[in-house]
Amino acid sequence: MKAEIIAVGSEMLTPDNIDTNSLYLTRRLWEAGCSVHLKTVVGDEPGEIVDALRAALDRSDFILVSGGLGPTEDDRTREAAARALGRRIRIDPHLLEALKRKFAARGFRMNKNNERQAEVIEGAEVLDNPFGTAPGMWLEERGRLLVLLPGPPRELESMFEASVVPKIGEAGAGERLVCRSLYVTGIPESELDARIAPLYTRYPRVQTTVLAGTRHIAVRLYRWVPAGEGAGDLDELAARIRAELGDTVFSTAGETMEEVIGRLLGGSGRTLAVAESCTAGMLGMQITRVAGSSAWFLGGVLCYSNPSKRDLCAVPEEVLRRYGAVSAETAEALARGVRRAFGSSIGLSITGIAGPGGGSEEKPVGLVHVGYSDGERTESLSRILPGDRESIRERSAALALSWLRRFLLRPGEDG
Amino acid sequence: MKAEIIAVGSEMLTPDNIDTNSLYLTRRLWEAGCSVHLKTVVGDEPGEIVDALRAALDRSDFILVSGGLGPTEDDRTREAAARALGRRIRIDPHLLEALKRKFAARGFRMNKNNERQAEVIEGAEVLDNPFGTAPGMWLEERGRLLVLLPGPPRELESMFEASVVPKIGEAGAGERLVCRSLYVTGIPESELDARIAPLYTRYPRVQTTVLAGTRHIAVRLYRWVPAGEGAGDLDELAARIRAELGDTVFSTAGETMEEVIGRLLGGSGRTLAVAESCTAGMLGMQITRVAGSSAWFLGGVLCYSNPSKRDLCAVPEEVLRRYGAVSAETAEALARGVRRAFGSSIGLSITGIAGPGGGSEEKPVGLVHVGYSDGERTESLSRILPGDRESIRERSAALALSWLRRFLLRPGEDG
Repeated sequence: MKAEIIAVGSEMLTPDNIDTNSLYLTRRLWEAGCSVHLKTVVGDEPGEIVDALRAALDRSDFILVSGGLGPTEDDRTREAAARALGRRIRIDPHLLEALKRKFAARGFRMNKNNERQAEVIEGAEVLDNPFGTAPGMWLEERGRLLVLLPGPPRELESMFEASVVPKIGEAGAGERLVCRSLYVTGIPESELDARIAPLYTRYPRVQTTVLAGTRHIAVRLYRWVPAGEGAGDLDELAARIRAELGDTVFSTAGETMEEVIGRLLGGSGRTLAVAESCTAGMLGMQITRVAGSSAWFLGGVLCYSNPSKRDLCAVPEEVLRRYGAVSAETAEALARGVRRAFGSSIGLSITGIAGPGGGSEEKPVGLVHVGYSDGERTESLSRILPGDRESIRERSAALALSWLRRFLLRPGEDG
Repeated sequence: MKAEIIAVGSEMLTPDNIDTNSLYLTRRLWEAGCSVHLKTVVGDEPGEIVDALRAALDRSDFILVSGGLGPTEDDRTREAAARALGRRIRIDPHLLEALKRKFAARGFRMNKNNERQAEVIEGAEVLDNPFGTAPGMWLEERGRLLVLLPGPPRELESMFEASVVPKIGEAGAGERLVCRSLYVTGIPESELDARIAPLYTRYPRVQTTVLAGTRHIAVRLYRWVPAGEGAGDLDELAARIRAELGDTVFSTAGETMEEVIGRLLGGSGRTLAVAESCTAGMLGMQITRVAGSSAWFLGGVLCYSNPSKRDLCAVPEEVLRRYGAVSAETAEALARGVRRAFGSSIGLSITGIAGPGGGSEEKPVGLVHVGYSDGERTESLSRILPGDRESIRERSAALALSWLRRFLLRPGEDG
């Protein structure tokens, strides 16, 4: 089944908002065996919505529309869908009663505008909205499916799960799109692609994408798998890429770096504390995204000033004066000091120049030192990272975690 | 001028990637007096790209296409645009020479695939790509403009600034879209809307949107202003909304909360230190997004464990035992302690239960206490915040900053 997604709402045609419902819908459609071949964002103008719906009904088997079902003047999707289908709209008395009850339960009286939410297109099956007042609709036309969903993500997702998923199950084509992701760190994108291209080009049925972000490079493999068949060649290709790239691959099942770190620390009973200068909390925030991270993360110091490096992380005044706050020596002293302050197995530190000011010829913007100390050894690593202030900070945190992972891996171990 | 944006690339039809170039393009188009009335994402299949381009040429004055100009098999935008326009493609010998030079300068030999990037559509003006190898194209057809831009944001933006902006200046319609944003905190969305709806409904030419996020509510006012006219009624409405909402409005010129906090702290010579438990660095990371924040931010402690609350922030053992780590008493002791540890004017603290585990009937998931101490007074505030782990953490950090702002504001002061 060829699906397409139409998001209705003028706010998504501004520089401030984007349609993110389509990411959720795409994932669920894939799992149900439907590929998405087109996405459109259209404003609140009824004529434009009608045109978008007519074009979609000419080319797609399954059309999902989000937004424009609310009670306000700007909510024109119902009316536009009726026009595109050449059908009438009527007020559904049961729906009207149910709406009135919903309002009463919240202690409100329903105003006239809200009655529009009881309007139903001829032949539509009404989809219940457990988290809002705007109901959805399921419509069929010349073998095509048209589904109208509310715009707020919570309402859209709960309606989709409860009312749409069971119905696509019946309509599904028996194929499903299967995906494998490998996350890679510590290797440039061009080198990665040069090494794996000879592998993936031998699997023409698998679509391979390589996407570099500030935190890692994602290699994604997609393939349509017919009902009853396994995704064997997908797993085979994933394993070959994995073998080629070795332990620069840190995740093959969607695990984030902080989850990998958490697993490696938690599994070995070791604990971590961090000293962050230029990142000022980004590292701690990322590590603690993982629920239960208090089992291995004890805390840290945001040493954004020289006195705090000295007083809270025991960096000797002499080191700061002689080498500066951004230096290998300070990074190592910070890692050592924060480890002692928290009594953790490992101390990890970051100090760098995120810019835009503060750089010099000797120590340019982007220069970052990360430090590691575990009581047996203390080391540091230095890089000059590209990008603006925020991406230098993101890359610094990613570098520190990626480097920490190498210390946590025992030879031959995964993760 | 009615503009539309087409993003080409199958990766944007997956659950993992979204077209964000259109946000940048929309902002720049608005500034040049073009409204965006439609956005489309299409995959790499040439037939679908041709259909999307043909439909666009039938309805829009200005069509911006991003992506699909690279050297690989998947890059089909050039070919599709030529088909949609019914024009031929030829290799441009000057472009080919320039490409070869670019590769040589990087120490690479250009392979055959890359020659495709020297292909030019008949009648096109070539747009230089200072950050990549794929050139763009500016095409005119029956009074419509079609512009092909590369997909990588850095390449797209630099090409747009250097080659497209000067040309739209000439083509512009003399109108421009003007926007005013008010960021609001500390008031529920429904109450906000009820209070300002009587104001904005009196300005029918102004489009008003209200959007609630985890960090603040954004009220945005848009209006098309003809050449030579001022945006007087937009400013008038903004001022009325501002007067109605009082100092719950923290920003009217796009300033973020951390910028407001930085301005208030920096302007008064006061300094800040933070103690973060459940947010574990999010607050520090946000505050230091502002360049130059080391002038007012001294640092903080990520006190993710009880011993670190006691040893680094001087929370008495007795307080922890009697009231627990998540309590008003601990929040206040943390604020007091971190202020002393860093020698700052103000200490700000957060302790809470971000979940999903760790909640109880008495202290449910979402419960957060924030503490403030400035040497003269120490106070705390408690809320039960909705959402999942990450949004509870985001709302906690936003609550702390919003609350801090109230202490920093002197009566009658802006910000």
